[in-house]
Amino acid sequence: MSDTYTLGLDYGTNSVRAVVVSTADGSTAGTHVFDYPSGDHGVLLDPRQPHLARQHPADYIEGLRIAVAGALDRADGVPGFSRDRVIGIGVDTTGSTPLPIDARARPLALDPTWEANLAAHAWLWKDHTSAAEAVAITEAARQHAPELLAPIGGTYSSEWWWSKIWHCLKVAPDVFDAAESWVELADFVPALLAGVDHPRAIVRCICAAGHKAMYSDAWGGLPPASFLSRLDPKLADLRGRLYDRALPPGTPAGTLSAAWAREFGLREGIAIAMGGFDAHYGAVGSGVRTGTLVKIIGTSTCDCAIAPGATPIADVPGICGIVNGSIMPGYYGIEAGQSAVGDLLKWWVEGVCQGDDSLHASLSAQASALKPGESGLIALDWNNGNRTILVDTRLTGLILGQTLHTTRAEVYRALIEATAFGARAIVERMREYGVPIERVVCCGGIAEKNDLFMQIYADVLGQPMLIAGSPQTPALGAAVSAAVTAGAAAGGYDSWTGAQDRMTTIKSKRFEPRPAARAVYDELYGIYRELHDAFGGVAGARPDLASLMKRLLALKENIVVDPA
Amino acid sequence: MSDTYTLGLDYGTNSVRAVVVSTADGSTAGTHVFDYPSGDHGVLLDPRQPHLARQHPADYIEGLRIAVAGALDRADGVPGFSRDRVIGIGVDTTGSTPLPIDARARPLALDPTWEANLAAHAWLWKDHTSAAEAVAITEAARQHAPELLAPIGGTYSSEWWWSKIWHCLKVAPDVFDAAESWVELADFVPALLAGVDHPRAIVRCICAAGHKAMYSDAWGGLPPASFLSRLDPKLADLRGRLYDRALPPGTPAGTLSAAWAREFGLREGIAIAMGGFDAHYGAVGSGVRTGTLVKIIGTSTCDCAIAPGATPIADVPGICGIVNGSIMPGYYGIEAGQSAVGDLLKWWVEGVCQGDDSLHASLSAQASALKPGESGLIALDWNNGNRTILVDTRLTGLILGQTLHTTRAEVYRALIEATAFGARAIVERMREYGVPIERVVCCGGIAEKNDLFMQIYADVLGQPMLIAGSPQTPALGAAVSAAVTAGAAAGGYDSWTGAQDRMTTIKSKRFEPRPAARAVYDELYGIYRELHDAFGGVAGARPDLASLMKRLLALKENIVVDPA
Repeated sequence: MSDTYTLGLDYGTNSVRAVVVSTADGSTAGTHVFDYPSGDHGVLLDPRQPHLARQHPADYIEGLRIAVAGALDRADGVPGFSRDRVIGIGVDTTGSTPLPIDARARPLALDPTWEANLAAHAWLWKDHTSAAEAVAITEAARQHAPELLAPIGGTYSSEWWWSKIWHCLKVAPDVFDAAESWVELADFVPALLAGVDHPRAIVRCICAAGHKAMYSDAWGGLPPASFLSRLDPKLADLRGRLYDRALPPGTPAGTLSAAWAREFGLREGIAIAMGGFDAHYGAVGSGVRTGTLVKIIGTSTCDCAIAPGATPIADVPGICGIVNGSIMPGYYGIEAGQSAVGDLLKWWVEGVCQGDDSLHASLSAQASALKPGESGLIALDWNNGNRTILVDTRLTGLILGQTLHTTRAEVYRALIEATAFGARAIVERMREYGVPIERVVCCGGIAEKNDLFMQIYADVLGQPMLIAGSPQTPALGAAVSAAVTAGAAAGGYDSWTGAQDRMTTIKSKRFEPRPAARAVYDELYGIYRELHDAFGGVAGARPDLASLMKRLLALKENIVVDPA
Repeated sequence: MSDTYTLGLDYGTNSVRAVVVSTADGSTAGTHVFDYPSGDHGVLLDPRQPHLARQHPADYIEGLRIAVAGALDRADGVPGFSRDRVIGIGVDTTGSTPLPIDARARPLALDPTWEANLAAHAWLWKDHTSAAEAVAITEAARQHAPELLAPIGGTYSSEWWWSKIWHCLKVAPDVFDAAESWVELADFVPALLAGVDHPRAIVRCICAAGHKAMYSDAWGGLPPASFLSRLDPKLADLRGRLYDRALPPGTPAGTLSAAWAREFGLREGIAIAMGGFDAHYGAVGSGVRTGTLVKIIGTSTCDCAIAPGATPIADVPGICGIVNGSIMPGYYGIEAGQSAVGDLLKWWVEGVCQGDDSLHASLSAQASALKPGESGLIALDWNNGNRTILVDTRLTGLILGQTLHTTRAEVYRALIEATAFGARAIVERMREYGVPIERVVCCGGIAEKNDLFMQIYADVLGQPMLIAGSPQTPALGAAVSAAVTAGAAAGGYDSWTGAQDRMTTIKSKRFEPRPAARAVYDELYGIYRELHDAFGGVAGARPDLASLMKRLLALKENIVVDPA
């Protein structure tokens, strides 16, 4: 393998990260992070609308300039690196993050006429202003086109494409009318780099289209105009100005334009990989393959798996998305998630206990000294609803089993356990429907820093917990995609597994399940499922609530009596 | 009414309080508090046995000397007071607090032979070392003498007389064998003042006997020897060395001995009232009468009511005790309770939030700004089990409805609400079985200090919450009892209501239920009862758990949408 490099760009909620990666071994030659400004730009909020979260598209362009320039400057200092050895650029972003664009494919908000209107900016993934539209879309699809819901777990979300665009049409019809088209951030950045100047020329990734816009080859692309007309005839009109086909990674989104090549000192015409969501490229950068579950553990958790695309797999009830080609071409991409993981611990430590990082550390240390079952507590991890497998945002948290001696460290541990039980429910559901899971690879800050968390997950899942070698797997995955898109002839790769084998790694540190802990957690998981199914409204749930607190006490007392 | 005075003595867990009270209007002429020392004496604990709580009887005698002398010294400064105008002494104590005594009615622990043995000391009400014995007594009674359980709510407690004495027999048989007899602290102190020098000469109060020792006229006093023999033949032997009759308040426990009269400068031979438990005399001091519920709100809550003794009343399932004459002669004394009230708030504020009194105040202020239903939370108040109406120590706490924005003040309020719902369950149960409750009078520190707490109780119970005029109702009630025991001829009273009308008061400050809050709390109470009945194992419970979180969210959203 010649000494070539690719660039991975990771558009997060608060920053843009650029990484220059060696295609030989995935090592980082240079990296730079651009934090979005917190003043006029940055995440745009409206105190009168707590569910609103927008972003000025100028931030995306400024972030691109500064992060890439910074990463290349760093790489320049690395022996063997030169800018003409960069063979491709890959981009991952948050999503669904749609933005309205004009006839030249420029974001509407860059036009002074529209800049003051929050609806003309990018609608961040976490914008929840479209709750009513999501409910209405789900209802309409249930009645008239249930096939649309099957691959997305049965419920359309307020975080997704059509909910947001429809909400814009309702609350800011002038913005809707002024927009020639709309684009996902994941498609906008590659198109920008490629110098695309017309909306229909933007190459669209199947990742965003399939998971967020109800796109499927099964019904010829986006939802039929007849369905969209039921929502609003203007949405059916918009359909014609969007796109006919969405494509998997590996297909180029374009080549680097002369202008950007000049700006960065890179070669014009190098490959621009298909855009993709951070979780999906994070899975690629974590070495996802058939039988591997990648858990991207952060404020929330995104679970990604793949299964060979040649054999159709069943729709899995409650799994957010199963889309052919969304993670890697030739495979079904299967996505699930938990709405609050790091956020749940943050709520407890910072919100309730009003502590900081040092309290996180001390609670973690105290919680580590506890045995499974010792606290007598059990919790449901639903403070932000349940994304998988119940797909219900209108669920809330529960903590049970408190005495007058219950400590904050015990609750901290119970909350970690609750997220682990939620993770186990997802794994069991996937396996039940034939998705093989033999290996679990984790990435994200919690996986790298919180040993207690990882050990509990190993014990609850009954599975070793591996950790991805790179601390920035989404950017690495985008760089892998760029290397595959460039191809072997250009100094990259012709196969995904070939690229992953060389460019991605697993840390030697891993967490093995401990048999005694696993046995207790099997019992606790049973109790969790009783509560989960009963409060989650699973048909046929038969919890034995009258004995539930006593069973927890019995577990607790067994541990006190027999510390072995 | 001539200017006479009585002395009320209140033996708490941590202190002895003496109060010199005017019989004319219940005003305090002098008061003094003796805090038990925290060194060798004071509450005796054993780090190896967390459920053990004992007290050295020497503390009781020292407390008597110092508290009474101090209160009289204060009273000496009051115009019109003189020690020869003191016409009687009344005593209330914690209970069940039994202690072993020798053939001269002296506490065994005062004998140097036994002092080092913790079993020879007083077994404090909160000593829970006898859990196994309580279960065995309940089981034996269920099988062989179910009538014994009916007046005590169906379950014998580890806090009570026979559990503790039996446990002593098991773990310290030498102490058991050395004891000529056992006495409740409530009977010991009056006997001490009266100079009683033989166990059989101690006058026993029906309050302790009926509520804690399964004494009833219905089966000729204490449980039959045949029943006690099933537990241990030595307990049947002990029965013969205890007592045949227990008597209601109003009957004298004796008269003041020459020695104590000399020590205190009081007249020899003045009336010693029957001893009684703090809660019962607290009810007397709060003006309890037919139709009044007195709530003594502290770390836990004790509810007391009375009903005319002429008409037999049904046993009320789940009510700890219904004993004829236990509060006032001629009335059934009805006792219920909640295991954790102030303790539940203390757990949250001090245990979890790790704050102090100032945090209590600030959380209370923040919680006051919340509307009923606004937090979306509901809790069960079972962190220390449920005393009434489920009578189950093996129940634990539950908090439900948390989001990532749930605050500590919201939880604080939800915990207060949970105790109010628990209080409502008790009131509803009493009414259901024909105990009239038309007026609620509260006493204790929380009632006097926490306006938020009192308003929530008024809203949840749908009943004005009144506050007893005296801050020390148990001691006042004991002083009332002394005035009645002395009788009108001695300058006291011949009737209880006569004495109460003059000596007890209600504060002018009261809390009225607010109709809008009451309506929301009616809904929340319905949800509380679904959880209460389901987790509490009430037969026929049919909770709709699948909709429960959503109903709480709907309440919350209605409040946000319509703040009126």
